[in-house]
Amino acid sequence: MEHGFIAWAKQRAMRLPKVKLGIGDDCALMASDGSDWVVTTDSLCEGTHFILQECGPLAVGKKLVGVNLSDLASMAAEPAAVFLSLCLPRKHADRLGAEIYEGVCQACQDYNVAIAGGDTNVWDGPLVVHMTAIGTARAQGSWLRSGARPGDKIVVSGHLGGSLLGKHLDFEPRLKIAQALYPLGSVQAATDISDGLGVDLLNITVASRCGAEVDLDRIPISDAAIEASQTSGQSPLEHAIGDGEDFELLMAVDPAKIAELPSEVDGVPLTVIGTFVSRTGLWSRNKRGVMQLQPRGYVHGS
Amino acid sequence: MEHGFIAWAKQRAMRLPKVKLGIGDDCALMASDGSDWVVTTDSLCEGTHFILQECGPLAVGKKLVGVNLSDLASMAAEPAAVFLSLCLPRKHADRLGAEIYEGVCQACQDYNVAIAGGDTNVWDGPLVVHMTAIGTARAQGSWLRSGARPGDKIVVSGHLGGSLLGKHLDFEPRLKIAQALYPLGSVQAATDISDGLGVDLLNITVASRCGAEVDLDRIPISDAAIEASQTSGQSPLEHAIGDGEDFELLMAVDPAKIAELPSEVDGVPLTVIGTFVSRTGLWSRNKRGVMQLQPRGYVHGS
Repeated sequence: MEHGFIAWAKQRAMRLPKVKLGIGDDCALMASDGSDWVVTTDSLCEGTHFILQECGPLAVGKKLVGVNLSDLASMAAEPAAVFLSLCLPRKHADRLGAEIYEGVCQACQDYNVAIAGGDTNVWDGPLVVHMTAIGTARAQGSWLRSGARPGDKIVVSGHLGGSLLGKHLDFEPRLKIAQALYPLGSVQAATDISDGLGVDLLNITVASRCGAEVDLDRIPISDAAIEASQTSGQSPLEHAIGDGEDFELLMAVDPAKIAELPSEVDGVPLTVIGTFVSRTGLWSRNKRGVMQLQPRGYVHGS
Repeated sequence: MEHGFIAWAKQRAMRLPKVKLGIGDDCALMASDGSDWVVTTDSLCEGTHFILQECGPLAVGKKLVGVNLSDLASMAAEPAAVFLSLCLPRKHADRLGAEIYEGVCQACQDYNVAIAGGDTNVWDGPLVVHMTAIGTARAQGSWLRSGARPGDKIVVSGHLGGSLLGKHLDFEPRLKIAQALYPLGSVQAATDISDGLGVDLLNITVASRCGAEVDLDRIPISDAAIEASQTSGQSPLEHAIGDGEDFELLMAVDPAKIAELPSEVDGVPLTVIGTFVSRTGLWSRNKRGVMQLQPRGYVHGS
């Protein structure tokens, strides 16, 4: 439901001068007398975003921080503080709350972020954890989804697909990559891959009023995507395009400056996988030619 | 669990320069080059904070905004934007989400606040709604819990108790009162009454390292507290002291300026109910003398 709802919500919501950029990007931008503030918010629900019995509460706390900081990274914002809200099942609420909090603390320490406040509730439902993260925007402007232009190169960090096998709980929000690339001035648009390469690429093209042509042979496929394909009935490529929660950066990079793009940052590869084009929609290119690409990853004859 | 947890969380949390005031007050304060930002976050869980079948989704949306803006009012902050996060039960998720959102929009319109972003999830649990509200701090400083001094008068807005009979779903966050009183410069400390007069007064005394002596005969008791007492086995006074979710302002006011305090703002009475004292703890004073007061509202022989 999320897309239709967001479109409707955006229309219905008020706009006020303090909000520079509201509903519809990875984060909101709040105007300030000094640096703008970048704000993002995300909930994780037991059974949907994690299986508590399998991963344990520490991992939930870490994932919650990672998901939020990944949104800040996709706007090239510098994280400042997070706000944690817990809805804890009544049974062992104290211990559960403390362990999640410990995971949050460890992740915040890793990324030098303060825990500035929150809210704790005990209730009769399953575990829900919620976080709002606030960062400061870069002085030369934030990366938005709407900045891609035809001709810009499509660049992804890392390897894609199969995140459910483990990475969705244990990933590095790409703050270092954003920090390394921002000064180059070549990133025109960005988002993080949370819903899957196809869907998130579509988000950029819609926001930027353009299309994208992906070179299927260049998509960096993760080992986990290959492993997942052995039992899923999907190809590794379909996993790489369709799987969510990769939390890699997906960027539009100025073609005139593509040569300056490092091939990796801190051991994480950056890969050019295609080009933004003026013809709207998602398109795939491989040795068989150009075809429409399904955002959910279904690839003809792959 | 909330008090012990907060104390521990506060110790465990990192502090960074961007955070002027972290865990433990109604809101956090984030330093900015211009006005500071005031941030608060609250979740409402089905079955704990509302009975969805009884109140309907519109009221849930309105309550969510009210609870958050009440926190901003208690710091005398000016609301700027809210971020909404929904965890919707799978059945009728679309309709439920839209109706809650409509309630949020209506309340935001009433208080001139923007909806700047959010997150929507569908899951197999009951309804959880979550909001983070951001406001700007007043230039001369925010009202904190820690500013009360012995001799300051204890002042409350409105009438207290029995909120469960209806007010907890339909209340006015006291932004107008904060706006009217701030320029007087006489409010030394403040909080909103969310856990009950007794508990929230205790919160101020602990933060301010003082005590409070309440004149029981002066506590403004609501009609709802009287109504509730007819079936609850508690006295109206006990309801007024012990019931949560009144969302009235509780303030420490400079005694030298108490004469300038208006008796009401916009039809809502302001009542002096006692004095902050140097002896720590909560004390009650009535015709029978001074006694220790239980924060949860139990009053000897009342």
